[in-house]
Order: sequence, then structure tokens, then C-alpha cells
Amino acid sequence: MATEGAPLRIPTYADVEAAADRIRGIAHRTPVLTSRLADERVGGSLFFKCENLQRVGAFKFRGACNAVAALSPEQRKAGVVAFSSGNHAQAMALAGTLEGVRAVIVMPQDAPAMKVAATRAYGGEVVFYDRYTEDREAIGRRLATEQGLTVIPPYDHEDVIAGQGTAAKELFEEVGPLDDLVVCLGGGGLLAGSALAADALSPGCRVVGVEPEAGNDGQRSFREGRIVSIPVPVSIADGALTPHLGQRTFPIIRRLVHDIVTVSDAALVEAMRYLAERLKIVAEPTGCLSSAAVFEDLVPARGRRVGIIVSGGNVDSRVMAKLLA
Amino acid sequence: MATEGAPLRIPTYADVEAAADRIRGIAHRTPVLTSRLADERVGGSLFFKCENLQRVGAFKFRGACNAVAALSPEQRKAGVVAFSSGNHAQAMALAGTLEGVRAVIVMPQDAPAMKVAATRAYGGEVVFYDRYTEDREAIGRRLATEQGLTVIPPYDHEDVIAGQGTAAKELFEEVGPLDDLVVCLGGGGLLAGSALAADALSPGCRVVGVEPEAGNDGQRSFREGRIVSIPVPVSIADGALTPHLGQRTFPIIRRLVHDIVTVSDAALVEAMRYLAERLKIVAEPTGCLSSAAVFEDLVPARGRRVGIIVSGGNVDSRVMAKLLA
Repeated sequence: MATEGAPLRIPTYADVEAAADRIRGIAHRTPVLTSRLADERVGGSLFFKCENLQRVGAFKFRGACNAVAALSPEQRKAGVVAFSSGNHAQAMALAGTLEGVRAVIVMPQDAPAMKVAATRAYGGEVVFYDRYTEDREAIGRRLATEQGLTVIPPYDHEDVIAGQGTAAKELFEEVGPLDDLVVCLGGGGLLAGSALAADALSPGCRVVGVEPEAGNDGQRSFREGRIVSIPVPVSIADGALTPHLGQRTFPIIRRLVHDIVTVSDAALVEAMRYLAERLKIVAEPTGCLSSAAVFEDLVPARGRRVGIIVSGGNVDSRVMAKLLA
Repeated sequence: MATEGAPLRIPTYADVEAAADRIRGIAHRTPVLTSRLADERVGGSLFFKCENLQRVGAFKFRGACNAVAALSPEQRKAGVVAFSSGNHAQAMALAGTLEGVRAVIVMPQDAPAMKVAATRAYGGEVVFYDRYTEDREAIGRRLATEQGLTVIPPYDHEDVIAGQGTAAKELFEEVGPLDDLVVCLGGGGLLAGSALAADALSPGCRVVGVEPEAGNDGQRSFREGRIVSIPVPVSIADGALTPHLGQRTFPIIRRLVHDIVTVSDAALVEAMRYLAERLKIVAEPTGCLSSAAVFEDLVPARGRRVGIIVSGGNVDSRVMAKLLA
């Protein structure tokens, strides 16, 4: 683990509040959309918190921004390192640029050119590794040691979790208490942060995590009461393909989350279509997990007020076209 | 013309203000999105007013809502009639439903089933006509006479124009004065209303209308100083295929608009792709007109603050998939 050796501090809602103060004016306060037709379809009131409209197109910017803003002056001077080929990479690149902190992003040599270009466009310094012969975490740690960089992991980090919790905080502040809050789940940063916010701002709200069917390590961990690891799953929800929960996210999820459900890739495509046609928004497959769970009635919404976090919108238009054709 | 015989009242900014009061809490106050990458691309500051996120997926709801809300008690009791197979139909259907006013929508027998279903889902009463043997305006007028219904045309009506102007009003209130405001143009309701708002709230702002290349009747009318009619144009921008401007929209456009430019269908598809990939929003081809004009540098944005009204998002996901494939 990247954070091996670091003291295991589990964040609380006070950390989410501190994060909200730190990222104010840097991260977007994203809109909450509603749809009369979607409400009629499920017989309840749905509130879509649009993190696909967040900077870099995903909630990940909140955690990255909070983690960079929370650095000590010495840490800021040296810079940060992240290993990711997904939204966390772009989020760290932009957070670093905006805060004037060097951000090194370790990416596989064969990462899609578009993702490399996007990370660089946000101001990230890309370091490549060979995913077949090298270990990215080892490379990240070596860079960290040699250059004094601070490693910011994508989810198993108190400031990252606290930052992700600010999306749900904004949602409750805008629409009031909810009966259910539905959140996608990979490593659990967004789910854990959301659960902290729900517990503080909407006591009694059921918090439900949603995973791709093929990658139900979170559901199994939740049910078995221990972190279960699985081989990297295969799903179009490429932001939720983590093999296990984090040491900091799992205890929060275990304590504050009410259930974890799974949805099929086919349900994700149908949710993507519905979000495009009815809400006029582009959500990446991972960003469709929570909506799909509600549309599939895995989180029954009849007569209830349900918050849905649409986590991200970073999908190539040609990939989207293929899925919706 | 549907409004033949009615006194020709040209709305002013006071009508836009009255409309804003009438539709408050009924129409959405839509979000304004920004994109760092889009700004870098054009070298200016772009503000996208997202009317695709408006109720029924288009700005048309503003004008319809205002027109229905402005009816006299007698008119409300009898109901309204509109002839449209596009966004105005759905907007009138929903506005009627929300205000408890019967809304009859005259549509061609061969209108797409999805559009008929959507209009009915919003509570509209659909009356069909045969577009090859019957005249929809004659049918609409006959229904109006027989049943005392008030005809609400899609753009050539003072309350409709005033209602459409509320989108630009909100934009200026949110982001302050702008150097340019770029607005799509079919019959000119949105452009005329936007020009009224710009004139009042951001003096000196250049207001630019954008038409599909194939349907440049507005540009020709603007340059020739008279309403030019053209055969129904062929373009993917199906919301801007009006053959001529309105008698109420043209005088406002002539007085307050600075230029009218045209864009190709290919530029619309590229703008649709950019809006999906970067802003994570779904815009219908007509809704891409204003963005395309800026991306194509027909409205130079370098060093300028430019407002862009994204007018609507009603595109079938399979059609969008085909365009983006």
C-alpha cells in the first residue's frame, strides 16, 4: 500500500467541513438536477448531484484539491506524486497547477494518448512505467523518497476521503434531508466521505453503495466484515475496478453505510442513455452506477427522497456513441 | 400567420422582467458552466448558459410558461393551442399542465412516436393533421375559434419573446457584463429576447445570432433590412429550420443585434462532441449553433468574455450516437 507506515487516521465529519472550507472557490459547487419524468418513472423524488460537471469532470477533484491544500509548506515546496491513469491523475495534475505545487503522475507507457495529453494539459508531469515489468507503486515511492514528494493515493487517505465528502455535504445543504443517498463505489473514498456527510446532516438517511456486478469486492467486504480482495474485475465501469477497499474507507463504510448493491454493465448503458436523453448530461459508465441502481429498483425510490451522486463524465465521445448505438 | 389580426406589440425589457417574475419557481434557473480547456482553446472566457438543462430540455419552456401565465382568467379557462412538432409543443404541454390550463397541440400524423409520447407525457392533448393535405395553422385557428382556445405561436408573440429573454437576464445577473452574447436563431424568439436583456443589463455587449448555413434567412433579412423567406432549409439543426423571422422578432433583431453568422452541419457535430467531452452536457444540433460559431472563430473570443446560450438538449441518444460515431 502506498500509505504503508503512515499513521491510520480515520477522518470524521469535521474533516469534511475543513475540506469544504479549503476547496471553496477552487472546486465547483456542482448543480443538483431534477427530472419530472425520472420522478414519475420511480414514483419518488430524485436529486442528481452532478459531479460530472465538477472540474476535470469528476468528484476526484475535490479530494485531490483538499489533499494538496492541506499540505505543509515544506510538502508544497517539494511537490506530490500520484499513480493513476484515471480521473485521480487529472485531478491531481489540476489541483497541483492551481495551488502552484509540482504534481508528478506515474502512468503506464501504454495509457491512452488522450489521457496522457489531458493530464499534461492540466499541468501534470507524466512519468511512464512499463506495466508488465515494473510496479507503479514502487516507482511512485522511489520518486517520493528521492525527491521528497508526498504520495497522494486515490482513495485511502484522510484528506482525499474528506474532500470527496463535500459533494454530499453540498447536496444536503441544497435539498435538505433525504431518505436515501446512493453512491458509486470503487476504493470507497466517495462512499465513505458521503456517509460521513449523511450521518451528520441527514440522520436516518440510508446510504447505499453501488458496484459493478463483476467487481463486488465491496459488497463482499461489507457482508463478511473484512476487506476482501478480488482479481481486477472486468466491467465498463472503469473507475470502479479497484480490487479492494481501503484501510481508511472500510471502517467508515462498515459503520455508516446501510447496504451495497451491484449492477450489470447492461444496466449502466441504459442509465447512461436515460441520463443523456432525460437529464441531458454525459456520465461515464462509473458515473452511471448510482442512477442504474435506482432505475433497476435495487434502491426502491417509491415515495422517497433519494440523492444520487453522478460521479463523473469522462468518457470518450466515440466510446459513448458505441455504447448508445 | 397565426397571429394575423392581433395588434403588433413589440416587447421591451420591462416585459422580460415581468416574465422573470411570472416564471420564477416554475422554470429552472439553469446553471452556467465554464471550462478551463474551452477557455484555453479560444483564449477568452466562455460562459455556457445551459438551457438544455431547462425543463422539457429547452429554453422554449420559458416563453411557453410566460405566455400561459400571462393569460386572462377567461383565456385560462378555455385553454391554449399550439402547432409544433418540436420543443415548443412539449413546452406548451408542460406549461399548460403546471398551470392547470388545457393545452391542445396540433402535430402531423407522421410525427416521430417519441415526440408524440413526450408531448402526451407532459399532459398535452395531441390533435393530428395530415401534413400533405391539411394546413396546420388553419386547423389550429379552427380549433381556436370553435373552442375559444388562445393560439400561442412558437416565437412571434410578445410573451414568448419576453419569456425567452429571461435566460440571458439570468446569465448577466450571474456573471456580470459580457463582451459578446452568442445565441442561436430560428424564428428569432430567443435572439430577440436575449438582445433585450443584453441592451438593458450589459450595454455595449455585442449580440450575435447564429443560423445553420443552409437556412440563412435571418442573416439575409438582417442584411437586407426586410424579412426574407426561404424554402424550409435542410440541416441537422432541426430547431432552426424556420423559413422566416417573425414580425415581432425582426424589428428587435434589426435594432439590437450586431451580426448574424452561419455554421455548417459538420461544425455542429464537432461542437456537439466538444460539449459532450469537455462540458459533459448533451446538446441537440440546434443547441450547438452558438458554441460552434465561437469554436469556429466566427465570433472571435480572444481576450473577451463571451456568453453562449446552449438552447436545448432534445436529441435521441441513437441519433447522437450516430453523429458522434
